[in-house]
Amino acid sequence: MGKKDQQLHSRIKKDIIEKIESGYYRPGRLLPTEAEFCRIYEVSRTTIRTALQHLIMEGHIYRKQGKGTFVAKGKIKQTLSSSSLRYNDQLRAQSREPGIKVNECLETRADAKTAEKLGVEEGEPLYLVKRTRLADNEEIQYEIAYVRKDLVPELTEDSVKQSLYDTITANGHQLNRTEEQLKIVISDEEVSTHLNISAGAPCFQISTITFIGSEQAVEYSEAYFRGDRVEFVIEREY
Amino acid sequence: MGKKDQQLHSRIKKDIIEKIESGYYRPGRLLPTEAEFCRIYEVSRTTIRTALQHLIMEGHIYRKQGKGTFVAKGKIKQTLSSSSLRYNDQLRAQSREPGIKVNECLETRADAKTAEKLGVEEGEPLYLVKRTRLADNEEIQYEIAYVRKDLVPELTEDSVKQSLYDTITANGHQLNRTEEQLKIVISDEEVSTHLNISAGAPCFQISTITFIGSEQAVEYSEAYFRGDRVEFVIEREY
Repeated sequence: MGKKDQQLHSRIKKDIIEKIESGYYRPGRLLPTEAEFCRIYEVSRTTIRTALQHLIMEGHIYRKQGKGTFVAKGKIKQTLSSSSLRYNDQLRAQSREPGIKVNECLETRADAKTAEKLGVEEGEPLYLVKRTRLADNEEIQYEIAYVRKDLVPELTEDSVKQSLYDTITANGHQLNRTEEQLKIVISDEEVSTHLNISAGAPCFQISTITFIGSEQAVEYSEAYFRGDRVEFVIEREY
Repeated sequence: MGKKDQQLHSRIKKDIIEKIESGYYRPGRLLPTEAEFCRIYEVSRTTIRTALQHLIMEGHIYRKQGKGTFVAKGKIKQTLSSSSLRYNDQLRAQSREPGIKVNECLETRADAKTAEKLGVEEGEPLYLVKRTRLADNEEIQYEIAYVRKDLVPELTEDSVKQSLYDTITANGHQLNRTEEQLKIVISDEEVSTHLNISAGAPCFQISTITFIGSEQAVEYSEAYFRGDRVEFVIEREY
């Protein structure tokens, strides 16, 4: 694709974003078809396709099989700076209904990577917990967590369906602090299947190590957030 | 591409990441060619290409024109939770040399979007400042900032080359707080050109509104960070 085409699809993308932000195209509204957009902007199908593809990846619009392309609702906001607001409370504050599915909850042993993250020996018994979080029945977060079994012997599918942090404190620990890293990753099949997106779509990944009062790492997790549906909010005071 | 192929390229991607993390492939090292990887893993060129493409997008490896594919150095870390560490200090703490280029510094007027963000009328005089930040001479952040000219009349290319926040305080204001939103965006030509990446590569976008003591919004900015070179660090206390 030539330089000129690239500039065109970006200009069309910006124009559609402006029309969404100004309310000309409202959330939930059916957008023109590709052919109609070609006529509106007097450009090729390839140019329109690229513009729409980028708008889909960024979550401004979405496609429904056999129905067309629609304007997306606002993104789910997740506050990063505060430790106080739990997932459920954050969602309810945005008038969205939180949900959770436990995909797996089983015993495993630490491999090289989890051993290093948790500061234990390889082969140490761990719980492996995989969960999907929903907002208004839409999958938005998929999380793979490893929990030290020696520190948290009492962990069940029921307890992690409620709260993993409550499960840890119910085992007699006080949460002290977390160290988190936020990256962009390209979703693989496991992540894309659980988030109901195309494999290869960009996602946020937050890796977290949770420390208890004794400064021992009790949990290591990797959470994947839909890049097209989630944005993070940070508030800083000076 | 079939289901089987997809699972294969993800497994190869994971294997290469493990070999990088374990030190088998060290930072800066030339990796096998596509043809060699095909033989190593006994898979098709398409499968290898997809695995390498995802590894490049995530920043584990990078390609040098005509030289091959290399293992990337660790990502640049940016602390999100702290307000105290400036860009330059954060970089120096990672033994990286910070740099800044002023791409544009001119007077403009508020359009609908910036007027809404800054809480002013459309047409209000603003400064438009575009800057690129570097780490060890590599472009990692491109920032477009709008500053209210009535509040910050004294703003020059020289002053924003030093620090935009210092420029604001030198005009007699106290910084109070910021509201930031972090999203994944697909880079357009302007962003990709300044960050020296392919158009269409996923980037972080942080949009910031900066408030001064009077609770007036003095600045609105959109900063783009290379998704393959930057990760954010968050620390939370409980």
